Amino acid sequence: MTINIGVIGTGAIGREHIRRCSTVLQNARVVALNDINRDNCQQIVNELTPEARIYDDAIDLINDPQVNAVLVTSWGPTHEAFVLACIEAGKAVFCEKPLAVTAQGCMNIVEAEIKTGRQLVQVGFMRPYDSGYRALKAVIDSGEIGEPLMLHCAHRNPEVGDSYTTDMAITDTLIHELDVLRWLLNDDYASVQVIFPRKTRKASSHLRDPQIVLLETAKGARIDVEIFVNCEYGYDIQCEVVGESGIARLPEPVSVQTRSAAKLSTTILTDWKKRFIDAYDVELQAFINNVISGEMTGPSAWDGYAAAVAADACVAAQTSGEIVPVKMADKPAFYR
Amino acid sequence: MTINIGVIGTGAIGREHIRRCSTVLQNARVVALNDINRDNCQQIVNELTPEARIYDDAIDLINDPQVNAVLVTSWGPTHEAFVLACIEAGKAVFCEKPLAVTAQGCMNIVEAEIKTGRQLVQVGFMRPYDSGYRALKAVIDSGEIGEPLMLHCAHRNPEVGDSYTTDMAITDTLIHELDVLRWLLNDDYASVQVIFPRKTRKASSHLRDPQIVLLETAKGARIDVEIFVNCEYGYDIQCEVVGESGIARLPEPVSVQTRSAAKLSTTILTDWKKRFIDAYDVELQAFINNVISGEMTGPSAWDGYAAAVAADACVAAQTSGEIVPVKMADKPAFYR
Amino acid sequence: MTINIGVIGTGAIGREHIRRCSTVLQNARVVALNDINRDNCQQIVNELTPEARIYDDAIDLINDPQVNAVLVTSWGPTHEAFVLACIEAGKAVFCEKPLAVTAQGCMNIVEAEIKTGRQLVQVGFMRPYDSGYRALKAVIDSGEIGEPLMLHCAHRNPEVGDSYTTDMAITDTLIHELDVLRWLLNDDYASVQVIFPRKTRKASSHLRDPQIVLLETAKGARIDVEIFVNCEYGYDIQCEVVGESGIARLPEPVSVQTRSAAKLSTTILTDWKKRFIDAYDVELQAFINNVISGEMTGPSAWDGYAAAVAADACVAAQTSGEIVPVKMADKPAFYR
Amino acid sequence: MTINIGVIGTGAIGREHIRRCSTVLQNARVVALNDINRDNCQQIVNELTPEARIYDDAIDLINDPQVNAVLVTSWGPTHEAFVLACIEAGKAVFCEKPLAVTAQGCMNIVEAEIKTGRQLVQVGFMRPYDSGYRALKAVIDSGEIGEPLMLHCAHRNPEVGDSYTTDMAITDTLIHELDVLRWLLNDDYASVQVIFPRKTRKASSHLRDPQIVLLETAKGARIDVEIFVNCEYGYDIQCEVVGESGIARLPEPVSVQTRSAAKLSTTILTDWKKRFIDAYDVELQAFINNVISGEMTGPSAWDGYAAAVAADACVAAQTSGEIVPVKMADKPAFYR
Repeated sequence: MTINIGVIGTGAIGREHIRRCSTVLQNARVVALNDINRDNCQQIVNELTPEARIYDDAIDLINDPQVNAVLVTSWGPTHEAFVLACIEAGKAVFCEKPLAVTAQGCMNIVEAEIKTGRQLVQVGFMRPYDSGYRALKAVIDSGEIGEPLMLHCAHRNPEVGDSYTTDMAITDTLIHELDVLRWLLNDDYASVQVIFPRKTRKASSHLRDPQIVLLETAKGARIDVEIFVNCEYGYDIQCEVVGESGIARLPEPVSVQTRSAAKLSTTILTDWKKRFIDAYDVELQAFINNVISGEMTGPSAWDGYAAAVAADACVAAQTSGEIVPVKMADKPAFYR
Repeated sequence: MTINIGVIGTGAIGREHIRRCSTVLQNARVVALNDINRDNCQQIVNELTPEARIYDDAIDLINDPQVNAVLVTSWGPTHEAFVLACIEAGKAVFCEKPLAVTAQGCMNIVEAEIKTGRQLVQVGFMRPYDSGYRALKAVIDSGEIGEPLMLHCAHRNPEVGDSYTTDMAITDTLIHELDVLRWLLNDDYASVQVIFPRKTRKASSHLRDPQIVLLETAKGARIDVEIFVNCEYGYDIQCEVVGESGIARLPEPVSVQTRSAAKLSTTILTDWKKRFIDAYDVELQAFINNVISGEMTGPSAWDGYAAAVAADACVAAQTSGEIVPVKMADKPAFYR
Repeated sequence: MTINIGVIGTGAIGREHIRRCSTVLQNARVVALNDINRDNCQQIVNELTPEARIYDDAIDLINDPQVNAVLVTSWGPTHEAFVLACIEAGKAVFCEKPLAVTAQGCMNIVEAEIKTGRQLVQVGFMRPYDSGYRALKAVIDSGEIGEPLMLHCAHRNPEVGDSYTTDMAITDTLIHELDVLRWLLNDDYASVQVIFPRKTRKASSHLRDPQIVLLETAKGARIDVEIFVNCEYGYDIQCEVVGESGIARLPEPVSVQTRSAAKLSTTILTDWKKRFIDAYDVELQAFINNVISGEMTGPSAWDGYAAAVAADACVAAQTSGEIVPVKMADKPAFYR
Repeated sequence: MTINIGVIGTGAIGREHIRRCSTVLQNARVVALNDINRDNCQQIVNELTPEARIYDDAIDLINDPQVNAVLVTSWGPTHEAFVLACIEAGKAVFCEKPLAVTAQGCMNIVEAEIKTGRQLVQVGFMRPYDSGYRALKAVIDSGEIGEPLMLHCAHRNPEVGDSYTTDMAITDTLIHELDVLRWLLNDDYASVQVIFPRKTRKASSHLRDPQIVLLETAKGARIDVEIFVNCEYGYDIQCEVVGESGIARLPEPVSVQTRSAAKLSTTILTDWKKRFIDAYDVELQAFINNVISGEMTGPSAWDGYAAAVAADACVAAQTSGEIVPVKMADKPAFYR
């Protein structure tokens, strides 16, 4: 069985997902495209999906009976409306992060989805599909290191542009940890605090970099995440889980070890796009498989809401310097 | 475009390839099956390929005009005849190792392929498709470590059954190194010597285990390969390339690092099937892509012949204890 | 030249230092002993220092003209008085931590030392003499990783006895980091905060374990130290320094790497006494050398005071849950 | 107790040992010096050993009743005569390698020593005193990896001068492995073979570099040692022991791990003098302790003889290209 996919937003990320569907993944075919710039769609048709139809209106694409499922990869502020339209049309939708630009927007989606009685939404958090995080979760779940008590994490980029602002360290960068760590621990956040170390001289004058975010979970685990987006040396994601009887660490990406010029070394990636490159394939194939099977198993609208609430608390904590509670609605039975 | 594949031999390996075509890879569909045991085919049809036709005669399968390409995964001694039939029918064929059970058999295939004027054969050596070996080759080819002078390799299995004989260390085990190291170095073998260390008490009485194979290449590089098929501790493939100015080492498989019970450790695989599991997918997708593009780029009939000649020399060296020359025919221009 | 040493306190640590002087180090000879239990001294005489004289009164030992330098390895609350007596007698003194049980006590020593116009005191902090920390400091000081911005540290013990209390995590355990990190960074502490993760079930009912101590330095670097004294798996000291352009990590203790039973592993120490075993030798030899040269270069009375002030702030932070400032007196020119 | 040491040969190595005795080790004092260049001795006296007496004749130094033990660190061809003179004088002697320049010369010493009925000689092989090799031997002896079957070793230097000749790869370089591997395995050599890989372009025109030496032991273990003295990248000693149930590897020297400029790396030494720098101290202290206790426990005259016989066989194998037997005399009961 092959599903027909419509894509809203054919910028860089949309184009990558279309390429995946066309040349990497099984059982999916892109049949409909929409973008605020019709030329973008035409180029995709020319290069990748000769049979896809171009829609000037995203809602028409969503309502095309031929379309079985929708990818929302448009500009963030448009996500909420498009996802709600997909839910209304009863169609499965894969929405790149953020699910909505406010926690309330996410909650609107949650409520709409519950009303349909069927899970339809997958949010584009790819790290739970990364083989390293999955292996780490397997070790935790095996009980080999006991109950997790502390996590020491880092999210480092070699550099960011001048347009990157202090709050984006939360909304664009930490947001991935906010999602994946909930999944890793099967836990929720209770409070957050942000501390600002001495600033690196490599950062823009307006940017506070690095930052350290301290999270407390509902079960009492403590997480520290170093965010350092001008670290110079590489794109580096670290995650160490300290349990009651042992410690497990996210694997480094595979690299050839060399002995050369008085150094024993492996290469650290510098391009973030390569770090989780396989995870994007796995993530989207999982969505396709879920559409076919009818059971959504990936990051849900609820997970999107949870990440948004936690991110809001982190941004508030950046400003106040205080410990800020993370106040989530009660989890609906619908999401188990 | 989707190609139609016929599979000859539906045992364990054949079944795995059929599963790949059906549930993992792009642009291929299994439409025809043959096996000496028709029940095997029927089971595949029931479980994986409901539309596939079962042939009682492999030659009929090969000649079915609907079949675009053939996988030969039957018993080794049947390979030569089936591959020759595919060549005669002008059809692309992916043949599991060995291409033929003798070097002469491989040469027969080479000559038949040259006669058609078109490369049609890919031999099922998967290691050149392993991401670790590819990364290692990239480092060598970059010149970072200079010209390769020596290779230190190991091929270890936790244990083998009683039916495993001393020559199988060459024909079943070393055969993978014989192929991948030629590719890695872009070189050929000139001579071989086999030495037998003190035997492990874990091996069958009739089996000499471990063995060390010493290979000299045409360019003068020296390779030592430890073959140890009752090493107990794991399935472990090592390859270290010593160049004029540095050393590069095949990456270890990814594993979560743990601190537990006074040990800092990562896991070593014990099941060989997991070691190159991704490479099998890449290998077969490459074959499919090559069938579509019309240009074969994988291990060729000539590579199959080269591995067979080297293996023959290694077996002779096991017996004689002498340094045995590897005498290959001149490489036809057809294979560049 | 050989110096004559008097030792006050011949318990476990005192005995170890006497053994060092007698069988490992150069240029020192233990000539005088004092202990609240005279039998302890006699046993030392019998086994290690046949020519040493036993004193019933520590002050008499200090004032013996034959004694060139004193080791104070008695019960903590006695340290201040003995060190002051050494200063009064104009004799070099090596005092095991704590220098005094209160910050004021340390300040009394600082003031007495300044009054003599000559540095006489070395505090028994051994980590600055550990080859790993020294190598780490060399990397920092070389500028290779840029200015230090963050430190991620851990101090883990497999288990502690029931008598170990929550504040001992600071005064007995963290105290080593409080000293060595000041030295490593050439910086002082500005404030501290303590957070308590979910408690391990392996700890005594009265003990909060693990703890995370967050320190801010005068230069604005941020330090997190995980203290986990019932971690089960081993005695493990971690220290990672994140600089503006790179990261440096304290080396793991040397260990044979093995491949065995499906694990690639090295051994983690479980006995804290082995972790810095060489550092004790280096530390005491440095003291001896300094006594001979007349210039004290090790952890000074001022360093002992600084560690005491920081420890007091940490203990206060444990109780209050607040960010507690570390209020030190201005550094006297005497200590540069 | 302090022993009085006389030193014959005050070049670089002699000077280092004198410095050790004077400033690092316990219980030894250099009281007598001899060198073919008297000025060398005078300089040592001026700088390190003001009370040492200078002898114009080495034999007079040996026979000085004040001298308890002798270090022979003169030019290799003089060793045999000086060691024999020490034995005749009944004095313990530490002789730098080689013990004698021929196997027969070593045997002359063995016979002289047996005749005195007392072990007096320690040969200056330092690797058995290296903490890494000791840890490796402890793992082997523990039985953790089972009986050793194979050793994979490497001895690499960044470069050598033009005066370094092909046979020096054996007599100056491999000689350390020839000693330490016998000790590590508690085994003897049965035969050797040398193979010459493609030559590096970095080596002098007259030097064959790298080389691979294949050794068979009496118990049947197989050893391969790569000797590569113009490897460019560093001074690197590798030793991997493959046992019946696991593998153990010589630890790398301690180094700070850094993340910098897209590399995760540790430093490889380039100066051989630093690689075993601690082992020299331990080695010489052991000699001193043995002189005091009266029982020699280090590399014996017999070990010196064994290394010489094996080296001779290796040099013969370099020339002949054949497998050359290592023919040792039967081990006298005197050496257990």
